[in-house]
This record gives sequence, C-alpha cells and structure tokens, in this order.
Amino acid sequence: MPQEWERFEKQVRRIHTLGSVSSVLGWDQETQMPSKGATARGEHSALIAGIAHEALTCSEMADSIAALNEADDLSATRQTVLRETAREHHRAVKVPQSLVEELSRVRVLSTEAWRVARGEDDFAYFAPHLARIVALKCEVADHVGYASHRYDALLDEYEPGATCASVTEMFAPFRGEARDLLDAVLGSEAAPPTSILRRPLSVDAQRRFCRAAAADLGFDFDAGRLDISAHPFCSGFHPQDVRLTTRYDENEPLSSFFGTLHETGHGLYEQGLPAEHAFTPMGAAVSLGVHESQSRLWENLVGRSRPFWSLYLPRLQTCYGGAFDDVSLDDMLFAANAVTPSLIRVEADELTYNFHILLRFELEAALIGGDVPIEDLPGAWREGMETYVGIAPENDADGVLQDVHWSHGLFGYFPTYTLGNLYAAQLFAAIRRDVDDVDGHIAKGDFGSILDWLRTHIHGYGMQYGAAELIERATGEAPTAEYLITYLREKLTPLYDL
Amino acid sequence: MPQEWERFEKQVRRIHTLGSVSSVLGWDQETQMPSKGATARGEHSALIAGIAHEALTCSEMADSIAALNEADDLSATRQTVLRETAREHHRAVKVPQSLVEELSRVRVLSTEAWRVARGEDDFAYFAPHLARIVALKCEVADHVGYASHRYDALLDEYEPGATCASVTEMFAPFRGEARDLLDAVLGSEAAPPTSILRRPLSVDAQRRFCRAAAADLGFDFDAGRLDISAHPFCSGFHPQDVRLTTRYDENEPLSSFFGTLHETGHGLYEQGLPAEHAFTPMGAAVSLGVHESQSRLWENLVGRSRPFWSLYLPRLQTCYGGAFDDVSLDDMLFAANAVTPSLIRVEADELTYNFHILLRFELEAALIGGDVPIEDLPGAWREGMETYVGIAPENDADGVLQDVHWSHGLFGYFPTYTLGNLYAAQLFAAIRRDVDDVDGHIAKGDFGSILDWLRTHIHGYGMQYGAAELIERATGEAPTAEYLITYLREKLTPLYDL
Repeated sequence: MPQEWERFEKQVRRIHTLGSVSSVLGWDQETQMPSKGATARGEHSALIAGIAHEALTCSEMADSIAALNEADDLSATRQTVLRETAREHHRAVKVPQSLVEELSRVRVLSTEAWRVARGEDDFAYFAPHLARIVALKCEVADHVGYASHRYDALLDEYEPGATCASVTEMFAPFRGEARDLLDAVLGSEAAPPTSILRRPLSVDAQRRFCRAAAADLGFDFDAGRLDISAHPFCSGFHPQDVRLTTRYDENEPLSSFFGTLHETGHGLYEQGLPAEHAFTPMGAAVSLGVHESQSRLWENLVGRSRPFWSLYLPRLQTCYGGAFDDVSLDDMLFAANAVTPSLIRVEADELTYNFHILLRFELEAALIGGDVPIEDLPGAWREGMETYVGIAPENDADGVLQDVHWSHGLFGYFPTYTLGNLYAAQLFAAIRRDVDDVDGHIAKGDFGSILDWLRTHIHGYGMQYGAAELIERATGEAPTAEYLITYLREKLTPLYDL
Repeated sequence: MPQEWERFEKQVRRIHTLGSVSSVLGWDQETQMPSKGATARGEHSALIAGIAHEALTCSEMADSIAALNEADDLSATRQTVLRETAREHHRAVKVPQSLVEELSRVRVLSTEAWRVARGEDDFAYFAPHLARIVALKCEVADHVGYASHRYDALLDEYEPGATCASVTEMFAPFRGEARDLLDAVLGSEAAPPTSILRRPLSVDAQRRFCRAAAADLGFDFDAGRLDISAHPFCSGFHPQDVRLTTRYDENEPLSSFFGTLHETGHGLYEQGLPAEHAFTPMGAAVSLGVHESQSRLWENLVGRSRPFWSLYLPRLQTCYGGAFDDVSLDDMLFAANAVTPSLIRVEADELTYNFHILLRFELEAALIGGDVPIEDLPGAWREGMETYVGIAPENDADGVLQDVHWSHGLFGYFPTYTLGNLYAAQLFAAIRRDVDDVDGHIAKGDFGSILDWLRTHIHGYGMQYGAAELIERATGEAPTAEYLITYLREKLTPLYDL
C-alpha cells in the first residue's frame, strides 16, 4: 500500500502542477502577452490541459483510486487527497471526451455571438447559441448525475456539496428581510455624497496607494505581484507565488482601491494555503464561495468599515496631494457604503448585488431544469429585476446580455458570489467573537489578528472539509444569510437614518 | 505512411510546444516571478522538461523514426523535420537517464560553488566541482560519440555540424592577422572619447529610446515585448510572441541601447521564422552561431556604423534633452567603436571579444580532451590572456572564474559567440553586394531592405540547412573569418589613424 500511495500521490502532484503551469500561461495571457501571441498560447494551453486530463482519467488512476479506497489506515490528509481526486476523476470520466470537445467548440462560437449580441442589443442573435450551450450543459449534468435537481450536478463543480435546495434555502431571506431593508433604504431621504468617489487622480498615485494597502493587509510581495488586466483576478500558482491584478480608471480612483482589497483577499487565501501540501487538494482552496468570502471580507467587512477609513482617509489625503482634504470621515463612509439600485451587476453595491445573483440563480436553475424556454428569458429578466431590485432594463444589453458567464457555459457559478458574501459576514461575526477589539486593531492598521484567525480557521485546511462544514467548524453554525443581513442592517441604519 | 507521418508530426509538435511552454516559464522566472516563487517554478519546469524528454525518447518515437527513414518520398520540409528530430532523439537516448539526472544535481551545486569561489577569488574551492562536471560532460560526449575529437560531441549541441577542427581553422586568423590589427590599434596614439558614453541619464528616457530603436529596426511589438532582466536575453515562444529583455544603468545610457539592438537582432530572427512550421524544426533557429550572427549584425555592423549614428545622434540629442548636444558624429562613432583590452569578456569590444572566445575555446577543448589538468587552468588562463589580449588578470575572479558557463556544464557554447561575429560580417558583406546603397538606407532609417534580405536568406529556412551550408548558400562562400577581419580593419584604420 505505501508504494500504491506513492504512485498515486505522484500522479496527483503531476495533475496539480500542470494546473499550476496552466495558471502561469493564463496569467501571462491576461497581463503580458502581446496581442498576436493568442494562437500560440491556445496551443500551449490546450496541450497542457490535455495532458492533465489524460492523467486524471487514465485507467491507472482509476485502479489507484479503487485500490486506495480499500485502505483503512489513511491519515486525514491522505483521505482528503484521495476523496477530492476521486471526485475530480469521476466527474471527468463520466463526461464523454466528445462532449467535452463539443463544449469547447461551442463555447468559442457562443462567446463570440454573445459579444456581437450585446453590442447590438440583439438577444435573438444570441438565443440559438445559448440554447445549444444549455443543452450541452444539461447533457453534462445528466452524465455526472444528481440526486434531486439537474442543476446540482453543475453547482457541484464550483461549490462542492451545494445543491439547488440548499442555495434556495440560504437565499430565502433575500425575498424577505433583505428586500424589506432595501425598501427602507430606498424610502430614506438621506443622499450619499457619491460624487467624492469620482475625482480624477493619476494612475501612478492609485498604483502606489493600492500596493501599499495590499501590503498593509498582509499580502507578501516577495511571494506575489500586483499587475493590470482588463478584468481583475487573482491567480495562485503556489502559496509562494500569487498574482493579483486590478485596473485603474483616472476618473474612479477608489474603484481600483476596492478592487485591490478584493483581490488581496483572494491572494491572502492563496498565500495562506498549506505550502507543504502544494500541488495536492490538501493545498487547494475549498470552493469558489469560500474563496469569494475571503475577498469580500477584506473588501467590505474590513475595507468599508469606519475604523478602516479612520485610518485610510488621512492616508488618502496625503497620498493624493490634498485632493480629498475637504472630505469628512462621515462623508467617505456614506459614499463607500451607498446603496444604489442599478441595472449592472458588476456596478452593484453590497446589498443589491445579492438580488442580481438571486435572479441569475433562479433563471439558470430554471434553464437547466427545462422550466423556462430561452425566448422567455428577456421578459423573465425584466420581471425579476423589477421585483428584486425595483428597476428594469429598457434593453437586453443592460439586461440578460450583460454577463459573459452563460456564453462560457458557466452555469452554477453565479451563486458562489452571494455565498461568498454570506460566508464573509458569518466569519467576521466569529472573528468579532474570538478576537478582542477588532475595530481597534483595524483603526491602528494592525490586520494581523484578523489574518491569523483566517489562517487558522480557513486557509490552513485546504480542502480537508467541504465549504459548509468548514464554515460551521469556524463559526459554530451552519452557513446562513442572517449574519449578512444583520451586518448590512446595522451598517445602513445609521447611514440612512432608518 | 501518411498516417505514420501524421502520428510522428503530432509528437514533434507536442515536444516543441512543451519547449515553448518551458520558455514561457523561464521568461516569467527571469522577468516577473517574485523571489519566493523559485521552488514552485522548479517543479513546473522539471515536470514539463520531463514530459518532453519522455516524448522524445520513447519507443514509439524510435519506431516512427525508423519507419520514416525508409520512406523515399518525403518533401524537403518533412526531411528536415525528420532529420532534426532524429538527431535530437539519438542524442537523448544515447545518454543514460541516470547521467542526465546526475548532471542536473551537480550543476546546481557547481553553480553555487562557482558563485562562492568567484566572490572569494578562490579557484581551489571551485576546482573539484569543475573537475566533476568536466568528467560528467566527457561521459556525455563518449555516450553521444564523435568521429575525431571528444569536444565535437559537445559542440554539436549548440552548433550542429561544427567540429573542433573546423572551429580551429575558422579561428586561425585570430592568431595572425587579427592579432596584428590589435597590435596596430594598441600602438596608435588616437584616444577614443569614451567618457561621453558615461553621462548619467534617466532609466525612463533610456527605455523610450531603446523601444523606439527596436521598432525602427522592424521588431513587431504586437508580436513581442521588451522587459528588464538581470542578464539580457531573447526568448521566442513562437514567431508571433517574442520576448526581449535588457537592463538599464543610469550611468551607462548606451549600454542598454546596444544591448537592445543586440537582443532585437535575436528577436527579428525569431519573428522571421516561418510561422506555418512553428513547433517543428522547420520553424526553429538553426544554431546558436547563426542566432548570434543576427544579434551582432544589428548591434555592430548596423548599430555602430557611421550612417546609423548620422541618424541616431540627433535623435539621441533630442530624446535626452540636450545631454549629448556637444558630441560630434566623429566622437560618437569613435567612442562606440573604441578598442580597449579588458579582463572581462562581457565588457570587451568588437575586436578583443574574439580573443576572449579563442582562449575559452582552446581551454575547454583541452579540458574535455584531457589535455590540461584542472589545477593548471588559472595559469593557462593568465598566459592565454597575455598572449591574445595583452593583459592578464591579477586574480582568478577576474580571470578563469568570471563566466558562469562552465559551472553550468556549457562546454562548446563559447565558440558560437565568435562564429556569430564572423557569420555576421560575412552576411553583411553579401547584403552590401545584393542591396543597393545599404548605407543610404541606414542613414534614412529604412532598415527594411536589410531585414528583407535576412528574412529571405536566413530566417525563412528554419533548420532546413545546417549553419555552414546556410551561410554558404546566403553568401556564396563557406564561413570564414576574413570578412570580420576586413570589416574591423576598414573600420578601425581611419578611427585609429593606422
């Protein structure tokens, strides 16, 4: 058995190392690669992905998993590595190679069609492509299998263990309490001074400010970088090499700042994963939802708080040569926490963002479940926006066509954004319980106690526990939206005089 | 047979694509990677190299080569792909895996020992490591096999087809005519105004100037980049994605400039390789010597010429805000072509550089041939420097310990630098013969006619011909040092009043 394990672990490391190489190629593509390099990069990436896929699905891997499943003396670490590798293996072997290849092809065409359709506000142009990709994803789900809802099989790829039913239950308060909170805010006469967020500032100054903040929070720049890309992201090749990106807009100087706090949260998770288990599931992040919880915790729970701005407003004023000298702490705090219903998800505030997700979750579960015809989608979108956010788009470009996800076949991905929000609030409540004077630490710029808590309760575990179990172990309670809603209510009540 | 070819070519493309991925990883490591990323990058690189090595040496590859060697209807392109792949395959299978691994291990230790030894000027500390690596390279050579000199087997890795005898013959004029030329220069009373090259200038201005020059020569920035690294290099992932680096020293503003011209020469070769044959030997550079000829041609034959500086001196004056306003064209030309014997190869001028190489070539051929004991090396070095360059180092750090190559096991690499110089001069003489008014084109900044000639006569052939045959086809004559010596004599005679 020791030899069997050694052989198995070597293959696991090989697969994860190839995944890490793919990430290097992807990061270079988004941040460095010259425009004409795309074709060659396509060859690079397809080859590495193909080798990894072969290693994951080959018969030797199947034999190893079968043999090791019989072992009764595996350590917890090894059990994790075996369980998660087996999960990936089974997902991969259940889906026929021809279907995987068809999806790749359709994804390229579909993304291109989506780009045109959005540009020309022409849903009908995109509809047949969307229908095709939904049909293929249904096929994938049927091959993978599921206990209750077909959508579960897709959700499982991004948030292992989550189901349509569990997400529906966790999201329920957004149809009640949270919606009431939004109504109350919209009924308030208090007007946040959001114009202070739109004072033009040089990209160079923004870059220095962002970099300093990432380092303050604990990001190790000897084990990572901060670059520019069209769509900000974080890519961890290894805990000792984590790459963040942001984008700078001279006219929205704090957009790069909050974006950097967000990606830094992802980056701190990647840097905190156990390096001794790198290139195995024990050294990997547990789910997209938990990953998002780390970014949201630092961006929102910490980065939009009063103690944070009591420290950073003076720094902002100094760094930007007086451009913010007339701004008070109250103004900055209100502007940074303004709630403004908007049509576009990526521009949404901390509260309404979740309604955007709720709508997408319901629609995509219905699409995959076969409960809504493609042609009804634009209408259902407008209706949902009206119900949840209180405004509806006049065209599909600002509506059902706004996100790239569905054209990529990413069904089951959206819910992880709101799961991240609610995990973040629940984790932060636990941090307040476990750590003395969190606000005092933040106001002094001492973020170490928060980071240490996350390292101990989240980062260090890799994939040892599933997302829900990890959150429950860390906080003492199963995941729930209550902490998020309480946090938002407590923050918005004084700001909006509720 | 068509199926056999298809299978074979697919494997060839796979091997070269993996090589290209390795280059991406290497480029990132030198230009972007944070310091702590080294360990993970080692894992990435070792895995990709291992997969490529397995694909090159596997029995299926051996069978394909054997079967296709029987085919009598292969196109010239396919013959090239087969011949070069077979050459690589046979080299790789002849050397036992245990020896390859031992070399890897020893290389790491040996490089570390070299670093310490150079820092402390302690050759004795490095000697046993050097002895070990020489012994291993001798083993490699004996496995690979050779007709006449053991060194041939090593030379063949960098300059396929070259032998100790052919290089000795080509280098012979450096013991005669070229040495006389150096004596004449050293006897001259003319003093080049080299201090004008050491006026401090900002890195930002240098960067703009370097980038503009690379673009002027024809480097396509939509298919490449120019970055910073400790040791400048060029890495071509594909003709459409070529990465150059340079380094900037505020106190030596033209060092980055000539360095950029040099790397641009390499980059133009990489961008000019036939893209339709990318990821096969037909789309690869023919040898290190030919590669170096491209960098030297642009750096020296073009970049240190009078017409070039008649165009660039005014640009330099404009770009650097008057800092060069008092410099005349004659001064600039003399300074850029100054001959100054020095101890350090990488600081050597166009003439004495070749003596540094001659010395290394003789010493490494003797080491590999078993003709000089390790402990005699420092003395042999001093003696050789005295004979060829006219000065000898007072310590080994500035002598036999100055280069990293031997600690890396790179025996047979040095001669390609001077081969590059002599190929460059011979090619440029042919360009002067074939293209009307080359100097006029250069003075107008029209480099297209030179580049077109190189595209047609060198770049477009990939590895179709060996280096010597390619040079002979392009110039009508077998490679010889005569053109280099004539070029240097004609340039130095007026400058030094010979």
